[in-house]
Amino acid sequence: MANAITIDSVHAALEALRARRPLVQNITNYVAMTVSANALLALGASPAMVHAVEEVEDFVAISDALAVNIGTLSPPWVEAMCIAVKRANALGKPWVLDPVGCGATAYRTQVAGELAGLKPSVIRGNASEIMSLAGQVGAGGKGVDSTAPAEYATSAAAALAQRAGCIVAITGETDYVSDGEALIAVHAGHALMPLSTALGCSLSAVTAAFAAVRSPREAAVAALAVFGAAGSVAAERCRGPGHLPAEICDALHAMDGATLAAHARLSE
Amino acid sequence: MANAITIDSVHAALEALRARRPLVQNITNYVAMTVSANALLALGASPAMVHAVEEVEDFVAISDALAVNIGTLSPPWVEAMCIAVKRANALGKPWVLDPVGCGATAYRTQVAGELAGLKPSVIRGNASEIMSLAGQVGAGGKGVDSTAPAEYATSAAAALAQRAGCIVAITGETDYVSDGEALIAVHAGHALMPLSTALGCSLSAVTAAFAAVRSPREAAVAALAVFGAAGSVAAERCRGPGHLPAEICDALHAMDGATLAAHARLSE
Amino acid sequence: MANAITIDSVHAALEALRARRPLVQNITNYVAMTVSANALLALGASPAMVHAVEEVEDFVAISDALAVNIGTLSPPWVEAMCIAVKRANALGKPWVLDPVGCGATAYRTQVAGELAGLKPSVIRGNASEIMSLAGQVGAGGKGVDSTAPAEYATSAAAALAQRAGCIVAITGETDYVSDGEALIAVHAGHALMPLSTALGCSLSAVTAAFAAVRSPREAAVAALAVFGAAGSVAAERCRGPGHLPAEICDALHAMDGATLAAHARLSE
Repeated sequence: MANAITIDSVHAALEALRARRPLVQNITNYVAMTVSANALLALGASPAMVHAVEEVEDFVAISDALAVNIGTLSPPWVEAMCIAVKRANALGKPWVLDPVGCGATAYRTQVAGELAGLKPSVIRGNASEIMSLAGQVGAGGKGVDSTAPAEYATSAAAALAQRAGCIVAITGETDYVSDGEALIAVHAGHALMPLSTALGCSLSAVTAAFAAVRSPREAAVAALAVFGAAGSVAAERCRGPGHLPAEICDALHAMDGATLAAHARLSE
Repeated sequence: MANAITIDSVHAALEALRARRPLVQNITNYVAMTVSANALLALGASPAMVHAVEEVEDFVAISDALAVNIGTLSPPWVEAMCIAVKRANALGKPWVLDPVGCGATAYRTQVAGELAGLKPSVIRGNASEIMSLAGQVGAGGKGVDSTAPAEYATSAAAALAQRAGCIVAITGETDYVSDGEALIAVHAGHALMPLSTALGCSLSAVTAAFAAVRSPREAAVAALAVFGAAGSVAAERCRGPGHLPAEICDALHAMDGATLAAHARLSE
Repeated sequence: MANAITIDSVHAALEALRARRPLVQNITNYVAMTVSANALLALGASPAMVHAVEEVEDFVAISDALAVNIGTLSPPWVEAMCIAVKRANALGKPWVLDPVGCGATAYRTQVAGELAGLKPSVIRGNASEIMSLAGQVGAGGKGVDSTAPAEYATSAAAALAQRAGCIVAITGETDYVSDGEALIAVHAGHALMPLSTALGCSLSAVTAAFAAVRSPREAAVAALAVFGAAGSVAAERCRGPGHLPAEICDALHAMDGATLAAHARLSE
């Protein structure tokens, strides 16, 4: 590990992101598009949702990072995803895979596996998705929500990180980032978050934004810490899940070093 | 009628739903996806938006109920809807049809009629849509909003319920549930609700969630009462329609027997 | 200029819109659908999102205006856009073009140019988009956000207005409306607005609603003034961008002459 990742280095990554204002291309699901775009804008990035095969390669060329999410996949979108990630790889641009619902159907699992084989910088999923993607069948996923705690998936994450040659982030009550060997735990977030849709998808988009200014491993940790801290701040202002996405955007927009330190903690 | 449907039985249905946490598959329109997913999560269900023909049958097999909504229909989506509902029928799983904008165009009316012929458990629409679907042409629908009060559609609802062999729910200032013979009126909701998009669509998704734990008739009444009560609680916290979806999610999340009894009333 | 456009005439246009409750058809991007529908409802219009080639012509026939937005374009949607605008022209119905991201890719620029050639009533974009669409290459657009102030695009707007035979609206810190000769500046809005997605797209939909009751030029000015004033009122109630769309809907719903006069100003 070149430099230790700390809350201070995460804050520096956030400042670097805001200074760079990276253009993040998203090929994502219909449910998450608006929430993800708003999270990226509030964070300080510039989002774009572009999926037509007629233009994805051109758009990758002007983007700083790419987020690919299979939540509402269908063949034309999968084709666009494959074209875009190959172009991102050819141009040396980072890209993040969110394998939504991997394990729920054969088609979804096959597409997720195919994309995982195309050298993502980071894979971000819940425990069920990561275990399924790592080939650990019978992981007990329920649709797109996870039924297993993140802890159960840490060895699967390490195996997947080694096999895919990338960073793997698992989200749950505690979040984990594996590079195949070392494991970093990120303590942040709030129990209300799984009750609001598209927050995991938005976190994947935020991970792509950080990957434009930091290594995949630092980006994964930074995204989990910043987004989790924002979720924690936001939940304190909510009586239920309804206003959580809006409050998270406000908290991302206002995030500073002190708030980050108060609401996120890293451990190895 | 086996058991009378009362506010108490509706509350019991809500508790049963929360205990079961049903997985509800949605093949719905682009506008309503995020709002519907959030309403289902806040209610206590687990939503999934899955529409590719490559996986809809597999997903129906792991779902507890299915909601089909033609709001932004196109041929590939209609194909997926037909495949999914046939699979749901084969597996004995309940499904709800929301015939958005039926009557507005020939294509929409034809697709709605085709789906209505595939044995839905519940059809939920506004007065114009139900009258159009029942074959009463010239019902005066205006795009996707209704121009007729729900009362005008009760005989059309009864005819449609008999013809389609299902429960028909009409929403308006007062809501009605017909099984082809008996009619139950649900008094709940608020005048601000038609000024916020996708709430009717979300109600149809909520109806599917209840159909996972109750008969179609009980499910339709329970969904109208719980969602309407949530809308009424939510509107009291709003100065306009902007925050209504978020407030409805908070109200669904916090809904209890006393609040339900205070904000919803049934009559025959 | 037949009649001067003033804040009073804008307010009269808003009252006319509310009295007419125009049905506005949208063929728009996935990100903006929900926000646009809510803005139209809050304003007093009736929105519909309809894009299947099987029904777009029928729907145009019952609509009062059409908004076309290429944000997440793909060939089937572009085909529907072309069919719909030709039908709108044949029936003498106004339509608004939002050339999202024009200049970012060759495909997007070509489609925007093709649509601009089909006699829109109003084209509404940011400075980068308008300069690109006017053929001024090298305008420095960054994805879908603009990197140039609106002032830089006023001559491009005039050229585009003359070439396309329509009204061109440029949005930025100050907004401008050109008919090819005269230029009206609209001073309204708030710096938070670019940090919330789909507000520009929603403004284009609102422009279409006004075009149902006023000339394209009056409609463009009225939409900018009313939406900008709503954004200004809304931003005062926000600590960040998260609640801005909801607050804008509340402000649109409550907009009156005094609020409009206090938050929007016109100059030539």
